[in-house]
Amino acid sequence: MKKISVCLTPQLLSLYEVSDKVVVVVDILRATSSITAGIATGVKSIIPVAEVEACRALQAQGYLAAGERDGKMVEGFTLGNSPFDYMADHVKGKTIAMTTTNGTLAIHKSSKAKEILIGSLLNLTAIANYLKQQPYDALVVCAGWKGNFNLEDTLFAGALVEKLTDHFAFDDDSALTSFYLFQAAKNDLMNFMRNSSHYRRLKHLDIVDDIAFCLSIDHFDVVPYLVEGGEIVAKK
Amino acid sequence: MKKISVCLTPQLLSLYEVSDKVVVVVDILRATSSITAGIATGVKSIIPVAEVEACRALQAQGYLAAGERDGKMVEGFTLGNSPFDYMADHVKGKTIAMTTTNGTLAIHKSSKAKEILIGSLLNLTAIANYLKQQPYDALVVCAGWKGNFNLEDTLFAGALVEKLTDHFAFDDDSALTSFYLFQAAKNDLMNFMRNSSHYRRLKHLDIVDDIAFCLSIDHFDVVPYLVEGGEIVAKK
Repeated sequence: MKKISVCLTPQLLSLYEVSDKVVVVVDILRATSSITAGIATGVKSIIPVAEVEACRALQAQGYLAAGERDGKMVEGFTLGNSPFDYMADHVKGKTIAMTTTNGTLAIHKSSKAKEILIGSLLNLTAIANYLKQQPYDALVVCAGWKGNFNLEDTLFAGALVEKLTDHFAFDDDSALTSFYLFQAAKNDLMNFMRNSSHYRRLKHLDIVDDIAFCLSIDHFDVVPYLVEGGEIVAKK
Repeated sequence: MKKISVCLTPQLLSLYEVSDKVVVVVDILRATSSITAGIATGVKSIIPVAEVEACRALQAQGYLAAGERDGKMVEGFTLGNSPFDYMADHVKGKTIAMTTTNGTLAIHKSSKAKEILIGSLLNLTAIANYLKQQPYDALVVCAGWKGNFNLEDTLFAGALVEKLTDHFAFDDDSALTSFYLFQAAKNDLMNFMRNSSHYRRLKHLDIVDDIAFCLSIDHFDVVPYLVEGGEIVAKK
């Protein structure tokens, strides 16, 4: 049986061998949810970068620039971090250069994996189905928050583990814990999240609609993945 | 209200400010359970050290030496890592030099804390009661396994958080997650642990009795803590 493990934060990724695994990077609030929403609704591709300056440089080459700092869209950029920005008519068919901190770090640190998929609750079943039909062990890499554990990414990990119980064995205690966390939360994810540090941090920024959307399961049937050169596109 | 947070592995401890907190170090299988058992039943004090050689040096000064490597007692030592070793008649009144890897690292990395307590399920309520009556925020430092998250230390964190809900606010997502994990496990800790990586790793070493003992709650009413100079003794 294939195995699934869960890396709770990129800080712990050095403890995992990634080169023989498919990695699912998750940053529910909001990078990987926004990428999923964009790629599912017509964005051509997304280039994740760590720094605002790298994003500006790509903007100068004609890409749309996306990103926030301290909860505000970077000055001169076209999109913020809200998934709704990535579903707007004016971004369809375009390539977006996106600066995120936690999400980009998780992708970068996973670069030796067999393949890097972009996961979110929005495309949970699509990711699960893809993992079932490919031959490798799976590793969920939670982007976390500034290096530390967070609730929402771990909930995704648990939801994915639950979907895969017939096809993958739990390979570590974090997979097991994610599973049980999701059991406690799944009947009302939004209410569960109200106790999280992220919700408390973000609710004053008026992004409760974003959070509710990011917690909706299987809104899209798409598997975004990283291709050589660092762009994220949809699996055909 | 005071706050409680949970550091899931020593690898993440740099993300926490410890200098204004009381730290509870936990390594359920088996270092802090063994320390608790020993200190509760008449061991005078325990000196935790990282390396076998440092332990041998203390043995040469007349201390009892304790520790295992690869599941076997170190040659020439008097005790292994089993909590039953620490409750034997011949160790009462003695000072034990103990080499552990995960547990000692957690203690060492917490050295700037207001105070370092040694926690286990065996003295859960004693630790909770002590934390209630002192003025500082609390941080549980899970020793984990080779730097990574583990189930049993997180279960202890959840059990402690549950005991303290009226006196401490959850300060991070890991405190919340520990709490829910313990809710899923508490009716049958041993059965829950059978799925853990540690159980799978250790059951062939014939230490199932150790595990069962280490999962028993409130066997002792003792608060072991670290005093200057690096010895662990009982709070009076």
